[in-house]
Order: sequence, then C-alpha cells, then structure tokens
Amino acid sequence: MSHAQKSLITRQLFDYETWTYTYLIWDEVSKEAAIIDSVLEQKNRDLALIQQLGLTLKYCMDTHVHADHITASGPIRAVTGAKILLHSNSCSACADILANDGDIFTLGDKSITIWHTPGHTNNDISYLIDGAVFTGDTMLIRDCGRTDFQMGDTKAMFDSLHRLLTLADDTIVYPGHDYKGFTSSTIAEEKTFNIRVTNNKSYAQFKEMIDNLNLPNPKRISVAVPGNMACGMV
Amino acid sequence: MSHAQKSLITRQLFDYETWTYTYLIWDEVSKEAAIIDSVLEQKNRDLALIQQLGLTLKYCMDTHVHADHITASGPIRAVTGAKILLHSNSCSACADILANDGDIFTLGDKSITIWHTPGHTNNDISYLIDGAVFTGDTMLIRDCGRTDFQMGDTKAMFDSLHRLLTLADDTIVYPGHDYKGFTSSTIAEEKTFNIRVTNNKSYAQFKEMIDNLNLPNPKRISVAVPGNMACGMV
Repeated sequence: MSHAQKSLITRQLFDYETWTYTYLIWDEVSKEAAIIDSVLEQKNRDLALIQQLGLTLKYCMDTHVHADHITASGPIRAVTGAKILLHSNSCSACADILANDGDIFTLGDKSITIWHTPGHTNNDISYLIDGAVFTGDTMLIRDCGRTDFQMGDTKAMFDSLHRLLTLADDTIVYPGHDYKGFTSSTIAEEKTFNIRVTNNKSYAQFKEMIDNLNLPNPKRISVAVPGNMACGMV
Repeated sequence: MSHAQKSLITRQLFDYETWTYTYLIWDEVSKEAAIIDSVLEQKNRDLALIQQLGLTLKYCMDTHVHADHITASGPIRAVTGAKILLHSNSCSACADILANDGDIFTLGDKSITIWHTPGHTNNDISYLIDGAVFTGDTMLIRDCGRTDFQMGDTKAMFDSLHRLLTLADDTIVYPGHDYKGFTSSTIAEEKTFNIRVTNNKSYAQFKEMIDNLNLPNPKRISVAVPGNMACGMV
C-alpha cells in the first residue's frame, strides 16, 4: 500500500445468513480502524481479521438499529475497547457516541463524515470517506430500503436519496445489503439506474411506488431490534 | 473516475447458489471490458450491468473449466460478440482463444497478463492486472483449491501458490470463491496467514496436509464439467 494514499482502505465482508455487508475500513499509516455494520455470528471472523491486519479498532459504527440481524458491536467493544457509535435518534443506552449530522471522526489523518440519512429508520447514518459512501439501508444498489417500520418515513427517504445523489459521480456506493450479488455501485450509476429516483420522480410518484411494495415483516425483527438496542450483548 | 487511472476498474459480483465470484473489469477510457468466471444463472444480471455501464465486452475469461457451476461465457458471447478465452490445456472446442503462460491481452491501453497456475486443474489461469490478481481456485483466501480431480496436481499447486507469492505485497487477491464471507485479500496477507504456505512449509508437509482433506465430490461435477467444455451452451 502506498503511504501517500488519500483514502482509507475498505475491506468488504459478507454474512450469508442475513445477506449483510460488513465493512472494515482503516488507515494504513496509523493502523486505526472502524468496523461498519458488524454481525454477531461473524464476531470471531472479524476479530481475527482485525488482529491479523495489526489494526487498532477505534470505532464500531452501525448505520442504524437493524431489524434483520444483531450487531456484534458490544462483543467487539469488549475485546478491542472500540467506541460504539450510533445516531443520536437511536436513543441507545449502550452506545458510547451518539452522533449527529456533520460530525467528523478520524482514523489517523483521514476522516469519516456523518450524514444523517433517515427514511428506513429515524436513525440512519451514511458514512462518507474520501471516494466512497457507506449507505446502510438508505441507498441500496438500484433500490432503497423499506420505510414501513421502526419510524421509517417515506418523505425522509426521498430526501435522503436525493441528498446522497449530490455526492461526486465517481463516489463508490457500498450498501448494507444486496440481494442480487452486487457488491458496490457508484453515485453516477444510481443517478441513472436506481428505479427509486430515475426520470425525475416527484415525491408523489416515489410515495406511490413505496406504498405498493407490500413487503413481509423481517423474520427476526422481534429479536433483532431489542438485541441491537443492547449493542448485541445478548 | 480519473482518466489518468493506472489500472482497470474491478466490479465484484456474487452468485449465492454456488458461492462464486464473477468479476467485471474494464478500462474507463475505452470502455473495453472482460468478464472473469461468469455464472450461467446470472447471465441476465451481468448482461444488463454491461449494457448499463456502456461497456464493450471484449473477452469472457474463465480461470479454468469449473466443476461447481456452469459458465455463462457461451450465452454472453452470443449477445456481445466477446471472445471466449481458456487455457490451452482445457482443450475446449468452443473457446475462441486458447491462451498460454505469458500471453498478454489488452483493454484499451491497459493489460491483462496470463499466468498458468495449475494445481486445482491442469488449465488454471491467474489473470494479472496492475495492482490485482484474479486467482480462481488456485489461491483462495487463507487456503487453496482442492487438487483431487480434473487432473489436479498437488505439486503443481504448491509451485503455483509460491509463484503467486512473488507478486508485490500490496497486490489485491480476488479469489474464485470464498466460504467465510471474505471478498478479497492481499499477497502480503496470504504470505503471512495462508495455512497452506506459512511456516516455510516444504512440499512434503504441504502434500500431507492436502492428502488428508477428505473432501466430498462437488455435487454438480457430472453436469458442470461437460457444460463448461461446451462454454455453457447447454
């Protein structure tokens, strides 16, 4: 790795059971790291990787309080001493940092900027680093997260998606999930091909589309939400 | 994307049924592209992505004649006119190009170098681009492919792994599969943590380890191998 690199290094990880992407990001110079959207069942895999790479884990960052899997942030904090970060709207009693829009966190001399991008829940964060954005369940590849539970809000989703589209065209989009086997996209691609925003959809058109999704409840919501409010210490 | 970029752009794709990674790589200036290890069932997804990105598909490159899934190279060639490339040892009658070690292919002004890295079969190719290597079932993350069928050869695998380890430490390793949810690694990591090569393992020690794997036959081998010999035109 070049020590002159501008950006953090990103390593994408995948949980087969819940189709969740976890991201380990780090600064190669200082070896300071953050994990985004860890999954409880993958705790040992991820701790081993952090140890092998010689990283100092500074933050466990979740994009929101998930309904489909339980975070590993509590157990990972217990081993590494990392701080758990969630959005302030999560009202989480176990988080160390309740972040807000515009807050900036650092790994070495590189920064992670918090954007509050609600819609899927009221506490969604998108994490911006140089060249990439981790969009959780707000912007998905060619799609967006559902808005029908956990204080989801269709208007907020519409606004969050359009805010994300103001990022530079070549920004890499790393979603929280993908169900077709895509691993990343770009803002340019989503502007052109994301079915939730193309053709200059008005909010009324967007709302009609979202209102007619008729999705079943996530299987694990009754276990996952309280589990995540406890930072995975279940 | 910067037009001054040194390397090809890589987009990793995943097939859930066979846990196979497909890679679409392209030159952003000329828009010339290659697909590595396509999967028949994902043909429509991949063709749509190629079309959306405005790419001209020049090559369908398989890392070897697979035993666990059927390639989409024939059907993708039929739509795009791309050339199908396999190693000369494959003796494939449907390939357009039977490549050999050291051959170089280009996408725009960027190159893809062929390394013959047998062991899993007798026709494995690793594809080298600037900064990354696509290792198929030769080098896996922390592991290597099995050597007990399709003219696999344990000594050849040992030699191929050690040849791959001569690449620059920061070369990104993109494998053909991963069964733990890892998506990439680096040569430096594999040198240090790949259980098949660590501790300066001799060939005798490597062979003993491989001989005792006792793996079941792939479920689809009797369908996949003849299907792939026909470039997926089944």
